[in-house]
Amino acid sequence: MKRADFPEPVKALVGELKRLPGIGPRSAERIAVWLLQSPKSNSAALAEALTVAKESVLPCPSCGFFATEAGCDVCDDPARDDLILCVVEQATDVLPLERSGAFRGRYHCLGGKLSPLDRVSPEDLRIPQLVRRIEAATEEIEVILALGADVEGEATANYLAELLRGRNCRLTRIAQGLPAGGGLEHADELTLMRAMQGRRSV
Amino acid sequence: MKRADFPEPVKALVGELKRLPGIGPRSAERIAVWLLQSPKSNSAALAEALTVAKESVLPCPSCGFFATEAGCDVCDDPARDDLILCVVEQATDVLPLERSGAFRGRYHCLGGKLSPLDRVSPEDLRIPQLVRRIEAATEEIEVILALGADVEGEATANYLAELLRGRNCRLTRIAQGLPAGGGLEHADELTLMRAMQGRRSV
Repeated sequence: MKRADFPEPVKALVGELKRLPGIGPRSAERIAVWLLQSPKSNSAALAEALTVAKESVLPCPSCGFFATEAGCDVCDDPARDDLILCVVEQATDVLPLERSGAFRGRYHCLGGKLSPLDRVSPEDLRIPQLVRRIEAATEEIEVILALGADVEGEATANYLAELLRGRNCRLTRIAQGLPAGGGLEHADELTLMRAMQGRRSV
Repeated sequence: MKRADFPEPVKALVGELKRLPGIGPRSAERIAVWLLQSPKSNSAALAEALTVAKESVLPCPSCGFFATEAGCDVCDDPARDDLILCVVEQATDVLPLERSGAFRGRYHCLGGKLSPLDRVSPEDLRIPQLVRRIEAATEEIEVILALGADVEGEATANYLAELLRGRNCRLTRIAQGLPAGGGLEHADELTLMRAMQGRRSV
């Protein structure tokens, strides 16, 4: 007797779903069964959305954020300040900054951070494009380094600071310190050290 | 200034992913971004697997388990015992039973359980097909009710017991009691009562 199992097409679907981030074998099975048992329009819409998104969404050649043929939400907005450029690691880092409402300038997504261990070196990032954007500016612009506070983020910030020194820009870096709503008792030593170093007069 | 957000095709993809069971807004965004940033083959394979599974997988007309044009793993297996029929609620209930290795007969998936509150009545389930299968048998068969131990499972089992009484079958029901590895201190009263009622001589 052969143990009954899902037919091959279901197993193939489960296999593909299992590769998605955060989806384990059991969630993949649950999603596959749900798709099989729900109206055909559901799975057709998902397959369609997947194909359309994959075909029409490209990184903006200027800033690296998600863009379509129709253009880039950030670069095409005339209301943004051309004299402030915020450098982030990933295109996805733009969204939390936009949601915070704290920034009204332009962005530049590097597409990663320097990490010799993962063999990510400066030529793998969109650093030449950044230099070109800064050099193309007619006035001095402020370049805000909004990189992560981990080792690779620090290394990338230091590398960029070295590279951009003397060019037509003023470099700043977003503050490190206590997260909003966080008490001193939950902060680690490095966070407290940075918070102390970054203290401001009130 | 307009706040930058994902382009429409990405939002559409996130919207479709969010409808999947167990996928919240943040997981949907994470999966969408992962798909956009991974090679095109990944999303193409997923879209393809989805379409193929949805088109080629159908419930087996006899047992209700997942089947393809090529046939049904359970019904087509000549090595299975024709004289034992295991009635389950959902096609997905077949898999854990098969994995347990405790059953070598045929299955009948009802496609649900009786639930007046959800407007599921006997005609919504594959009950006439079950009766026909039992009546078509040349010898007396054993019908094992492997339904859930919840209220609807009980109601469905009672309804089937009433319906099948006097027909060419011997009705049994899977045991209720302590789950494997579960201690008495974690069992609820109803489970303990059932375990006590179902006691067997050793």
